[in-house]
Amino acid sequence: MKKTALGNVRVTGGFWKEKQDLNRKVTIGAVYDRFYDTGRVTAFSFNWKAGEPNKPHIFWDSDIAKWMEGAAYLLGERWDEELSAKVEWLIDRIEEHQEPDGYFNIYYTVVEPGRRFTNRGYHELYCAGHLIEAAIAYYEATGRDRFLHLMEKYADLIYRVFLVEKSAAFRTPGHEELELALIRLFRLTGEKKWFELAKYFLEERGNPPEDNGYAQSHLPIRRQTEAVGHAVRAGYLYTAMAEYAAETGDEELMATCRALLRDITERKMYLSGGIGQSYMGEAFTIPYDLPDATAYNETCASISMILFADALAESDNDARYADLIEREMYNGMLPGLSLSGDAFFYENPLEIVLSDRTKHIHLPNNEQERLPITQRKKVFDCSCCPPNLNRMIAGIGRYFYAKDGETYFVNQFADSVFTEEDRKIEVKTDYPADGGVEIRCENIPRLAVRMPGWCRRVTASAAYKKEKGYLIFDRPGVISLRFSMPPRLVFADARVRSYHGKCALMRGPILYALEAIDNGENLQAIGIGSVKGAKICKDDRFDHPTIRLNGYRELPGKALYMSRPPKRKETELLFIPYADFANRGESDMTVWVRYEK
Amino acid sequence: MKKTALGNVRVTGGFWKEKQDLNRKVTIGAVYDRFYDTGRVTAFSFNWKAGEPNKPHIFWDSDIAKWMEGAAYLLGERWDEELSAKVEWLIDRIEEHQEPDGYFNIYYTVVEPGRRFTNRGYHELYCAGHLIEAAIAYYEATGRDRFLHLMEKYADLIYRVFLVEKSAAFRTPGHEELELALIRLFRLTGEKKWFELAKYFLEERGNPPEDNGYAQSHLPIRRQTEAVGHAVRAGYLYTAMAEYAAETGDEELMATCRALLRDITERKMYLSGGIGQSYMGEAFTIPYDLPDATAYNETCASISMILFADALAESDNDARYADLIEREMYNGMLPGLSLSGDAFFYENPLEIVLSDRTKHIHLPNNEQERLPITQRKKVFDCSCCPPNLNRMIAGIGRYFYAKDGETYFVNQFADSVFTEEDRKIEVKTDYPADGGVEIRCENIPRLAVRMPGWCRRVTASAAYKKEKGYLIFDRPGVISLRFSMPPRLVFADARVRSYHGKCALMRGPILYALEAIDNGENLQAIGIGSVKGAKICKDDRFDHPTIRLNGYRELPGKALYMSRPPKRKETELLFIPYADFANRGESDMTVWVRYEK
Repeated sequence: MKKTALGNVRVTGGFWKEKQDLNRKVTIGAVYDRFYDTGRVTAFSFNWKAGEPNKPHIFWDSDIAKWMEGAAYLLGERWDEELSAKVEWLIDRIEEHQEPDGYFNIYYTVVEPGRRFTNRGYHELYCAGHLIEAAIAYYEATGRDRFLHLMEKYADLIYRVFLVEKSAAFRTPGHEELELALIRLFRLTGEKKWFELAKYFLEERGNPPEDNGYAQSHLPIRRQTEAVGHAVRAGYLYTAMAEYAAETGDEELMATCRALLRDITERKMYLSGGIGQSYMGEAFTIPYDLPDATAYNETCASISMILFADALAESDNDARYADLIEREMYNGMLPGLSLSGDAFFYENPLEIVLSDRTKHIHLPNNEQERLPITQRKKVFDCSCCPPNLNRMIAGIGRYFYAKDGETYFVNQFADSVFTEEDRKIEVKTDYPADGGVEIRCENIPRLAVRMPGWCRRVTASAAYKKEKGYLIFDRPGVISLRFSMPPRLVFADARVRSYHGKCALMRGPILYALEAIDNGENLQAIGIGSVKGAKICKDDRFDHPTIRLNGYRELPGKALYMSRPPKRKETELLFIPYADFANRGESDMTVWVRYEK
Repeated sequence: MKKTALGNVRVTGGFWKEKQDLNRKVTIGAVYDRFYDTGRVTAFSFNWKAGEPNKPHIFWDSDIAKWMEGAAYLLGERWDEELSAKVEWLIDRIEEHQEPDGYFNIYYTVVEPGRRFTNRGYHELYCAGHLIEAAIAYYEATGRDRFLHLMEKYADLIYRVFLVEKSAAFRTPGHEELELALIRLFRLTGEKKWFELAKYFLEERGNPPEDNGYAQSHLPIRRQTEAVGHAVRAGYLYTAMAEYAAETGDEELMATCRALLRDITERKMYLSGGIGQSYMGEAFTIPYDLPDATAYNETCASISMILFADALAESDNDARYADLIEREMYNGMLPGLSLSGDAFFYENPLEIVLSDRTKHIHLPNNEQERLPITQRKKVFDCSCCPPNLNRMIAGIGRYFYAKDGETYFVNQFADSVFTEEDRKIEVKTDYPADGGVEIRCENIPRLAVRMPGWCRRVTASAAYKKEKGYLIFDRPGVISLRFSMPPRLVFADARVRSYHGKCALMRGPILYALEAIDNGENLQAIGIGSVKGAKICKDDRFDHPTIRLNGYRELPGKALYMSRPPKRKETELLFIPYADFANRGESDMTVWVRYEK
């Protein structure tokens, strides 16, 4: 199936409309303001001098580029003069400071001039990729092609340096992303050299290796069947591989991509969709190693999984890709954003124990064990995630619908309208708070509605057949569906050491968590035995309903070691949506809870 | 009760005789040879020159001193010309190189001359303490007083510098130990100035602080009620505090010492008796923080707990101190020694997961997470533990018997004979393999036999009454006792996060563990529900019987996350004595096992 153009989708209400409104009203401005404060915006004036504060960092161009891409989607949906002026100011600066041969990179112009294309690890091509994506988005949203042409000129230079002259000190991007941008540019313009360059960057990997796997150049891509290294880099590479395979119809490479997805989702992914088990390298570790408190789970890595799943769906009409996108949208990506819309997590652990952060009582705070932060921040030194959220939330509608010939797919459920000439699909729903979905179709020959992978029972107002996880309706009119979504317990494979004897609570696509602020300290003394009697409660403090459930709590005893297990007290537990953790101050938190029938 | 003199006890057979024979035949020589290889022995020739290898380290004097103390106990038990020659050679060198004013320290003479008593953190007084203890032990064992007089001269200098002139750059030892040596010297010689100096070092702490608690000078000792800082330092200090309080009859200070013991045993001690939860500072962390895989549990720290418990018993005839000594002897101290007698653990974790040591797959081995080593080593850069085992094993008999007036205590059960003039106690037993104990007494007015704290049922051939955990027999003759020791499960207080839903297996005083070499990988997928059907098996590969017990193992499933808990398979488990782990090559290991009825 092919993704539909963002312009064909309108998000009209419900959960995602609220997130998009928040993005427009708060997040996009908050990210810009913090980028301004930290010098990222003014860096585009290219007037930083040695010794001054706010020295441009190697990846600042990409921070701003992702923000521009997000702004572009907002402008495409609804014009905003002030936002447009900010984007145009940045494009003016890009035009002003682009070198005559097309080169554009702040760091290598004002900080380390004369050293361009010498350091594979310095994000130069990564920045180029995000700038190109921003230019494409701005052109698609506004029809303005100035930025696009500037970036085509830059792409031209990269083509010449890397593919024709081979004069750079390295052969492939040290942080993948440009490959995605080039395929997107090819798809927009039809210009084959962009695809050729993307192909070169992909096929050149591992021939011979340029790293040990940290940046995925340890093997040729066709022999990369296990996800390794820096998780965001990996996610972007695998996405590009899948798009490349889809474009060329390369079934063998596509099978490799699917093997990578299996390796991730069946051996290395947290229940939230988070990937990258360790901060050491922000990287994948080994299969079934899923420690919760130290989970890295970078917000950008979950975003990369959305891109990867979406790319794989291009050549396989299976609902499992949209299932994964759903998991990542709600549980992997959104914990990165505060409910207030102006603060961010870079790392998204599944457990917080506050006392672990100061337990080495004779050491100052900066010498304690390295653990994720416990409150969202306005900006990071490495602030890739906030603008990535800008662009993902603004462009989320692109994942709702897809098509393959005369079949139209409803992949995600949200109040929204899809239109394409005289064809129209309108979805009305309170999803994911409620499993009822109404779909009104006009002139749709064949409709494929995703039956969520977590759903065991659906009722539909019209006849359907099932195909690879989709409910297929021929010549549909108005269809009412109800996906049954009782709270359910989820268990992990016995090979995952951290989850033995534990379970997690989910409802529909939403993963839940316990916070100490509601349930008391020492969350690991809490256990549950079933979901019987679970109460689903509307709770305006959170994005989704909360769940009240009876469990037990083990009680302190009289000795450290005893001949009997601790006594238990029945207790009502309050589960909140995992993505909403840490929105009420610092608190212990856990997703996995002891299970005992 | 008062400890009995080591010379009054003879270990005649059984478990501890075997360990003592191993110490005599293997360990004492192995430690000496490695100390020779590494330059520790020849350092006593004081001819190291800048730029040469084997630069004397600040605590090498203490490594050798502890070895000399161990050698002294062996010589006291049975003369050995070769061993004696090694000790005498060292004493010759000490005599030769002691400075005219009595000062003796290799590091501050050959490496940093002119800097004596300037750096509290440099173990100078700690070395002095161990040398004094060695001199006392050698005098007691052999009657030879040369070494003792040399050390009295050194003690005299320390008295003058610290107490009279107060001319040192610090006021109290940065690593406690000298306090113990001074009290021991006072008890041997009756010379009050040694006690006065010990008292000064103790009372001076925290008045004002010389550290933040890492070396226990954050508060005056009377206000130290929580165990903090470096665990071995803490254990030695608390021991000295208890001995000081016992000497002076200071009930208030003794209560403080008991509060410290409670804080340790009821909030910060591993089930093995190990203390010092973290390698960061080799220190205590916070209450109920007992992570198994990263437990530091230095061998020396368990030894310090034996000393501390023994000191507390001086003024409280309660069996719980000997209970703690028993726990430490078998499970805390002995894991530090290989079954072959020539290799050592400094750290004694309660869990090993080998894959955690290489899971950051793009990092070289020296950049992985910091975790304890998995195989015992012959020598360490900081090799305090091996000679501490020499002296503790050689002198272990001193913890077997005690007396208070006309009451004689049997604190530990081992084939041994206690004699004091015409009074005699002879113990025959296969303890701890078996709970049967026969005690033959001659002219003993009153006998107090420890009823082990873990024991729920005892049978005795004579009438007794119970007092503070002791079975009291008046005018005993031959007494047969049987302490019932079925395998039992132990559980932890609900405040210990790492042990929720888990149990450990013990039998008598012995703690058990599972190794992957016997039970397969992924030990945390294993669970047990009771000790029913447990089989106690003689197994010559280990120090104590092994236990076979039926449990279950969770099986790998078809997906990473599932709607049902993993399937289980019944399986027979082999538990080995914890202290004997890692004697058959590298293996995963765990003490705590999932518990589900």
